[in-house]
Amino acid sequence: MAKVIIIGGVAGGASCAARLRRQREDLEITLIDRGKYVSFANCGLPYYVGEVITEEKKLLVATPELFERRFNIRVKVETEVLAVDRARKVVRLKDLPSGRESEEPYDTLVLAPGAGPVRPPLPGLDLPGVFALRTIPDSRQIRGWIQEHHTTSAVVIGGGFIGLEMAENLAHRGLKVTIVEMLSQVMPPLDPEMAEPLHERLRARGVDLRLGDGLAGLEPDPAGGLRVKTKSGAQFSAGLALLAIGVRPETKLAKEAGLTLGPLGGIQVDAEMRTSDPAIFAVGDAVEVLTYPSHRRALLPLAGPANRQGRVAADVIAGKPRPFRGVQGTAVCGVFGLTAALTGETEKSLKAADRSDYAKVYLHPGHHVAYYPDAKPIYLKLLFERPSGKVLGLQAVGEEGVEKRVDVAAMAIQMGGTVFDLEESELCYAPQFGAAKDPLNVAGMIAANVLRGDLQLADWADLEKEGDKLILDVRDPAEYASGHVPGAVNIPLNELRARSGELPKDKEIWAYCRVGQRSYYANRLLLQKGFKARNLPGGYLTYLSLNPENSRG
Amino acid sequence: MAKVIIIGGVAGGASCAARLRRQREDLEITLIDRGKYVSFANCGLPYYVGEVITEEKKLLVATPELFERRFNIRVKVETEVLAVDRARKVVRLKDLPSGRESEEPYDTLVLAPGAGPVRPPLPGLDLPGVFALRTIPDSRQIRGWIQEHHTTSAVVIGGGFIGLEMAENLAHRGLKVTIVEMLSQVMPPLDPEMAEPLHERLRARGVDLRLGDGLAGLEPDPAGGLRVKTKSGAQFSAGLALLAIGVRPETKLAKEAGLTLGPLGGIQVDAEMRTSDPAIFAVGDAVEVLTYPSHRRALLPLAGPANRQGRVAADVIAGKPRPFRGVQGTAVCGVFGLTAALTGETEKSLKAADRSDYAKVYLHPGHHVAYYPDAKPIYLKLLFERPSGKVLGLQAVGEEGVEKRVDVAAMAIQMGGTVFDLEESELCYAPQFGAAKDPLNVAGMIAANVLRGDLQLADWADLEKEGDKLILDVRDPAEYASGHVPGAVNIPLNELRARSGELPKDKEIWAYCRVGQRSYYANRLLLQKGFKARNLPGGYLTYLSLNPENSRG
Repeated sequence: MAKVIIIGGVAGGASCAARLRRQREDLEITLIDRGKYVSFANCGLPYYVGEVITEEKKLLVATPELFERRFNIRVKVETEVLAVDRARKVVRLKDLPSGRESEEPYDTLVLAPGAGPVRPPLPGLDLPGVFALRTIPDSRQIRGWIQEHHTTSAVVIGGGFIGLEMAENLAHRGLKVTIVEMLSQVMPPLDPEMAEPLHERLRARGVDLRLGDGLAGLEPDPAGGLRVKTKSGAQFSAGLALLAIGVRPETKLAKEAGLTLGPLGGIQVDAEMRTSDPAIFAVGDAVEVLTYPSHRRALLPLAGPANRQGRVAADVIAGKPRPFRGVQGTAVCGVFGLTAALTGETEKSLKAADRSDYAKVYLHPGHHVAYYPDAKPIYLKLLFERPSGKVLGLQAVGEEGVEKRVDVAAMAIQMGGTVFDLEESELCYAPQFGAAKDPLNVAGMIAANVLRGDLQLADWADLEKEGDKLILDVRDPAEYASGHVPGAVNIPLNELRARSGELPKDKEIWAYCRVGQRSYYANRLLLQKGFKARNLPGGYLTYLSLNPENSRG
Repeated sequence: MAKVIIIGGVAGGASCAARLRRQREDLEITLIDRGKYVSFANCGLPYYVGEVITEEKKLLVATPELFERRFNIRVKVETEVLAVDRARKVVRLKDLPSGRESEEPYDTLVLAPGAGPVRPPLPGLDLPGVFALRTIPDSRQIRGWIQEHHTTSAVVIGGGFIGLEMAENLAHRGLKVTIVEMLSQVMPPLDPEMAEPLHERLRARGVDLRLGDGLAGLEPDPAGGLRVKTKSGAQFSAGLALLAIGVRPETKLAKEAGLTLGPLGGIQVDAEMRTSDPAIFAVGDAVEVLTYPSHRRALLPLAGPANRQGRVAADVIAGKPRPFRGVQGTAVCGVFGLTAALTGETEKSLKAADRSDYAKVYLHPGHHVAYYPDAKPIYLKLLFERPSGKVLGLQAVGEEGVEKRVDVAAMAIQMGGTVFDLEESELCYAPQFGAAKDPLNVAGMIAANVLRGDLQLADWADLEKEGDKLILDVRDPAEYASGHVPGAVNIPLNELRARSGELPKDKEIWAYCRVGQRSYYANRLLLQKGFKARNLPGGYLTYLSLNPENSRG
C-alpha cells in the first residue's frame, strides 16, 4: 500500500489528509504534528484569549481520534520531523514526550509546516510575560498569565491582523493596551488613508497607538511586569507583551532537504503544489504563491488558500490533477466594531509593481439606504485598470456590510470582471440590506463615468503641486465653515448653475464636496459649460483620511 | 431646446431625469407624477407603517424643489397624463387639484408609470379598512387607521415580499396578523422547500399563516372592523385588510397610445429601453424585461433594475447608447429575523422553461465557523448547469450572512461563473465573518464533486419511487432515534468502514446524515469499496423542509 506522509496537521495539512482519504481508500495516510493537536482553529486563538470563545475544546475542529476513526488516517502528535531523506524516501521522527527517534518511509510527502512568528534579535524577548500566539498552549499561557498576575496592561508589538485582534481581545478583558507599530499605519496591506478610520477607532477606544515607532527592547520592571523601550526613546510599563510583528515561512526542513526555495524565502511549488522534488508537495503558509490574477510572487499566509491548496495537492496525489489558481489576498479584520477588508491589488502593491495603468475612486456610501435607521458609512477605495476597466482591487472600512462588498468584488476579480460589471451588478436590495444602487453599483458607476470620459478626476496627491487651479467647495456654507481644504472657494451646488460666471475659464477647477456626489454633479455641469473641470474623489472625508492631522485639530 | 418629458417620478423615472441632466445641460427636462411626491422611498413604506422609520420626511429621497434647483428639471406633481398623441408628439395633462387640462409637447418621452396592486373582483374590497400599499399617502392612511380604530388585528392577503414585510411590521406594532396565501408557500419566487423555514418562523412569531387558501370576500363586521371569508369557507375578523396579492404593469397609457405590449402584458422595449415608437422609451416595473443570462421574457418589478434602466434610457437619449443587460431577479426579504434571498434561476423557473440540464445541491452551513459564538445556519440551494457547471441560481434562508452569499453568487452569475469558480473563490475569512471554507466555497466544492463524478447524488423526490434501494442513515444512533427517514437503516459514519460488509452490493445505497457532510464521506467510502452509492443532498434538514408535515409531528 502506497504511503503518504503529511507533516503539519492544521489548515492545509488536515484538508489535504481528509480530501486524500475521500479520493483514495487504498493509501496509507499519516498526519504528523509537532504539537498536541491537529486541525485546531488557530484563527480563533485571539478570541479564546479574549474569552469571547470560552471553551478551549471548541477550538478543536477535529481530534486525532476522529481522524483515525472516521478517515482511517494515522495521526502522530507531539512528533517532530527531524529530517527528510529524499534519496531513501524516509522521514526521521522524534517522539517528543519520550525523545525516541524513528524512521518512517513515504512514497509521497506533503509539507504543511506553516509560518512562525518573527522574533527580532532584541533584548528581553525571552523574559517571562513575553508571548507570541500560534498554538492553543500559547493562548492558554497568556490566559493563565493574565489570571495569575492580575495583569492590567499589555503592549502589542505590531499592528497587523493578529496585533489588532489581540489588542481588541486584551482590551475586552479590561487591559489597557499599547500598540507599537514601526510603520505609520496599522494593517499594513491597506493603503495608508484606508487605515485612518482604524487609527481613529483604536484611539477612541483607549488604545495607546504608537505609530512609526519600533520596539527597542524589554526589561523586567522592578515594580513587576515589563519595562518597554521603543526606538524613539519612549519607555513605559506593561504587564505582558505580545509579539505580533509578522510571520515567516517555516522552511528549515525543506531547506535542509535541499528543496528549492523561492526568492521571497518560501518553499517553491508549481501550480499543482509540487516542490522541486516530484515526490514532495507543499501547501499553506510555508509556500510562495503567485498572486491572482497578476501572477506576482508573494507570501500570503491565509487560511482559505491553505485549505484549497491542501485539496489541490490531494487531488494531484490521487491522480486527478488540477491547478491551484493563486491567491488574491482577500482578508478581513474586525477591531472594536469596525471591519476592514480588502481583496486584490492596493495602490501600494500596484506602485510596488511599477504599474501606472490604473485609476482609483473613493466613496463613502451608507451600508444601506439613509432613510432606514442606523445606516453606517463604508469607506471604499476601488482600483481599476485603465483603459480596460478591469477591477484590480477593493478596500473597505466601516461598521456594517463591509465584508459583503469585498466578497462581491473578490468574485468579480476572480472572474476578470470590470467596473462596468460592478455598475450593472444586480445585488440584494431591501431597505435594511442595501440600496437600489448598492455601494458597489455606485463604485462601478463612478469608475465607468471616469472611463467613459463623463467624469474628470484630479488626484488629492497633486493638491499642493504647482499649476493654475481653483479649488471649489460645492457644499453648503455651514459645512464649508466647519472645515475645508485650505484656499478652497465655496459655491454651493444648488447655486452653481446661476453663479458659474464667477469661475475662470482658463484655470482648472477642482471640485469637492463631502463624499463626492455633489462634486460629481458639479463636474458634469462645469464640463458641459466649457470649464476645465476636475473632481477630487471621495470628498472632504477622503481629504481628512489623507491628512489625518487636520481631522484631529 | 429639445424637450424630454418623463412620466413617473419614482425609481426609474427619477434616475432617468437626473442622469439625463448630467449628460445634457441643453435639454428641457420635465418630470411628471400623478402623486404629490417624486423620488420617494417606496421600498421603505412597510417600515414606515411599522414605525421602524419614524419620520415621513425620511421617505423623501429628493423633493421637487431639489430637482428644480439642483438639476434644473421642471417637476409637475399631482398631474395626470391623460393621453399621449404620438402623431403630434404631445401629452395631454390634467392638473389634479384644479382639474385644468393642458398639452405639453415633447421630442422624447419616457414612460415610468410603475406597477399597481392587483385588485381581484371580489366583494368588499372597497370597504373602509381595506388598503393597498404603494404610496406615502397609502402608508399614512394605514397608520391613521390603526391609531384611530385602535386596531388589534390585520389580515394580509398575499404572502409575497410586501405581504411578508407588512405582516412583520404590523406585528411589530402589536397587531395579531393573519396571512392568507393562495399558494402552498410564501415568497413565491422561492422553491417551496426553501420557503419552509419562513413558514416555521412566521408561525413561531404568532402569525396565523393560512396557505393554500384564497380570499373569497370581505364584509363589514357588525362588531366593527372586517369579516374575512376565504375560499376554503373559513371566516374570521380583522381590524384591517392589506391587499398584497401582487402588482401588474401600469400600461393603460401605453396601450391607448398604441405602443406594443409584450406577451406578458408589460410594455415591450428593446435593449436600449425604446418602445415600438422610437421617440418613446419605457423603464421600470411597467416594462417586460429579458432575464439574464437566459433571455426569457419576464415581469420583475425590482428597484435596482428600474434605476439602471432609467440610466440606460438617459444615456441613449443623450446620444451615448449602451444596452441594458437584463434582470437576474436578485431579491431579498427580511421577516422576523430571518432573511430569504435568491438570484438567478430556481428549480421552479427551470422546470417552467422545460430545462432538465441542471443539478442541485442543498447545504446548511453556519454563517461563520462553529467555534465562534452564535453561528447561525443558512439553508442554501445551489442550481447549476450540467455538464458545464455554470451557476444558474442560488437561494438562501437564514438569520445572518444570507444576502452576502446571494450577492456573491449574483456576481458569479453576472460573469458567467461556474461552480468551479465558487469552489475556488477567495472570500473574507475571520472567525466572526465566515469560514476558511466559506459556505459558498463548500457549495461549489459539493457541486464540483458532482460534476467530477466524485459524488453521486440521488433526488429526494425519488425517495418513494420504485426501485431496489437501501436508505442509509449515517448519523449517530441518538440522532437516528430522534427522527429519521422511514425505512432507513442506521450505521454511524465512524463504523461504516468496518461494517460495510452488512450492506448489499446489488442495491443502490442512498445515504444521508443531518446536513450532507457525513453522508458525503460515506458516499466516497462506499463508491471506492464498489457499492452502488448515492447521496441524498442536504441531509435530514432538507428532508424535513421537503416534508414539513413530519417536522411538525
